[in-house]
Amino acid sequence: MMKEKILISHGSGGRLTHTLIENLFHRYFHFEELKKGDDGGVFFASEGKYVISTDSYVVDPIFFPGGDIGSLSVSGTINDLASMAAKPVCFSVGFVLEEGLDIESLEEVVSSMAVILKKENIPVIAADTKVVENRGNKSPGLFINTTGIGKVIKNLPGKKAIKPGDTIVINGTIGEHGFSVLSTRLELNQDDPIVSDARPLWNLVNSVLEEIPVKFMRDPTRGGVAGVLNELVKGMDFGILLYEEVIPVGNKVQGISELLGIDPLEVANEGKMIFVVDKKYSQDIIRILTSHPDGRDAQIIGEITGDYKGKVIVVNPYGAKRILHMPLGEQLPRIC
Amino acid sequence: MMKEKILISHGSGGRLTHTLIENLFHRYFHFEELKKGDDGGVFFASEGKYVISTDSYVVDPIFFPGGDIGSLSVSGTINDLASMAAKPVCFSVGFVLEEGLDIESLEEVVSSMAVILKKENIPVIAADTKVVENRGNKSPGLFINTTGIGKVIKNLPGKKAIKPGDTIVINGTIGEHGFSVLSTRLELNQDDPIVSDARPLWNLVNSVLEEIPVKFMRDPTRGGVAGVLNELVKGMDFGILLYEEVIPVGNKVQGISELLGIDPLEVANEGKMIFVVDKKYSQDIIRILTSHPDGRDAQIIGEITGDYKGKVIVVNPYGAKRILHMPLGEQLPRIC
Repeated sequence: MMKEKILISHGSGGRLTHTLIENLFHRYFHFEELKKGDDGGVFFASEGKYVISTDSYVVDPIFFPGGDIGSLSVSGTINDLASMAAKPVCFSVGFVLEEGLDIESLEEVVSSMAVILKKENIPVIAADTKVVENRGNKSPGLFINTTGIGKVIKNLPGKKAIKPGDTIVINGTIGEHGFSVLSTRLELNQDDPIVSDARPLWNLVNSVLEEIPVKFMRDPTRGGVAGVLNELVKGMDFGILLYEEVIPVGNKVQGISELLGIDPLEVANEGKMIFVVDKKYSQDIIRILTSHPDGRDAQIIGEITGDYKGKVIVVNPYGAKRILHMPLGEQLPRIC
Repeated sequence: MMKEKILISHGSGGRLTHTLIENLFHRYFHFEELKKGDDGGVFFASEGKYVISTDSYVVDPIFFPGGDIGSLSVSGTINDLASMAAKPVCFSVGFVLEEGLDIESLEEVVSSMAVILKKENIPVIAADTKVVENRGNKSPGLFINTTGIGKVIKNLPGKKAIKPGDTIVINGTIGEHGFSVLSTRLELNQDDPIVSDARPLWNLVNSVLEEIPVKFMRDPTRGGVAGVLNELVKGMDFGILLYEEVIPVGNKVQGISELLGIDPLEVANEGKMIFVVDKKYSQDIIRILTSHPDGRDAQIIGEITGDYKGKVIVVNPYGAKRILHMPLGEQLPRIC
């Protein structure tokens, strides 16, 4: 099937749909429940608290340095579950393919998903494929919905437990995913591209949860660090001070950020987690994170303050302060 | 917001995304878990067997007689769970909106979803919204992924328990959904349109399961009755005889079917369920179905046979037989 293209009839539930499922999806997704071909997949729950997280991925282009829409979708949903302290149990996947998509590209995407799912030991137990007409003059792509079920392994106290003096930690450099996609789209820096940080973080998060009573976690995707921290302080009786000189930013991200005039704090990450912990755990969490391959560049980037309620304040090396707003959201469409 | 249109930035995770979530989605989706705004929603499982079912809906046009993409998506996922004998527990919803979509249209779709979810008492506990560029010269639409979690209330024995002599039953007339969408798209019969049968069937299915040891159920959506029955016999040691004169087909469906040369057996339904039961329960299941508003036109349409292994045979009123193939799938794209 390698040089073939997706036709509208691949999505109509007839013979071509079955061919696609059997010759492509089932070759990569070796999951018993899926191969049964029922209208849903079965999982066995133990009594307790579960989380569902859903995301539709529409990243454009579908391939970028460091990943593709497939690895992104699976990592993103794992990370959303991780931010709820939930160990991934099983996934569903919904594909919306554009007519004319190379089946070879689809295969590459599905293969990227399969590699991560296998490594993380997460079965896909339900799936669906639809096909829509190609959109005008663009090269055909695809959208992926991944919905994950996770079992909550620890009850985080959440926002209400946060108090002035608490420490804000991130597991590494910011802005890589959004700038990687954007620079691919703009054909910038192609010799030495910015590589997306997209990766699954359950293993890292689990290591932290085993030792540290984390108060709050969130992955700074769309809207970046600015988005997550503004959501965190919204309506709360505290604010946040971020120390600009300790926020980890790679050289290439710094460069493109200055070139385009986009603050890396507003740019999406897909392999980062922000943790809020009591100050007394600051050094322990940094030790755990930096000893893990997905947290080598972890940093304490700020603290909770009783002043500036409901606001996120960036303090520069000279002590000057500026408000970091919730991003308006026009600058970086379709980065996830 | 009524006359506004969806902008790319409504999907970028910034202020406009938050406005859309708060001013539209939260007004219709009154679900506590959703309003928390976490990366996922929590549900409490009791020990046992659960089902996940996922579907992306890409129906075009998004409004049709008898429903819209919203009511369709919610009903479709309820019915997929029902076919696995699973009572719906909670849903996730993922929207992919096209730039330029009227916010009023989106509101109508979300409202349709909310009406059914409320009636069926199913919370949406996780949601996501993305925006993509409009596709060329078409009016902007949307895609919806609904993923449902259901608790299995009865273990159906499935295909392996089916034996010659078993009865095949459907809860009413066929082909209405597919032909409703198709005739809307072709602008046929607009004065007296074919109304889609899209509706949730959990209540009906539950009534049957309480009394009848159903062997197998499946909702004949994409690919229609022909698709479901061909999947059922595939590789099995039995075949199916369908009796043409007892297959319930409405007059309008019969008319358009002859006009377009499309067999209603190959056309999608969204409010139908096919049941396979031991012959001795034939009259009981018909009694239960016909006494329910969603099963008034229920019929025994055929039987399992030891002959014609792996094949579905349609017998006409004169006893002539033809093979009903798995639909190739080109005729009716984007009907769900």
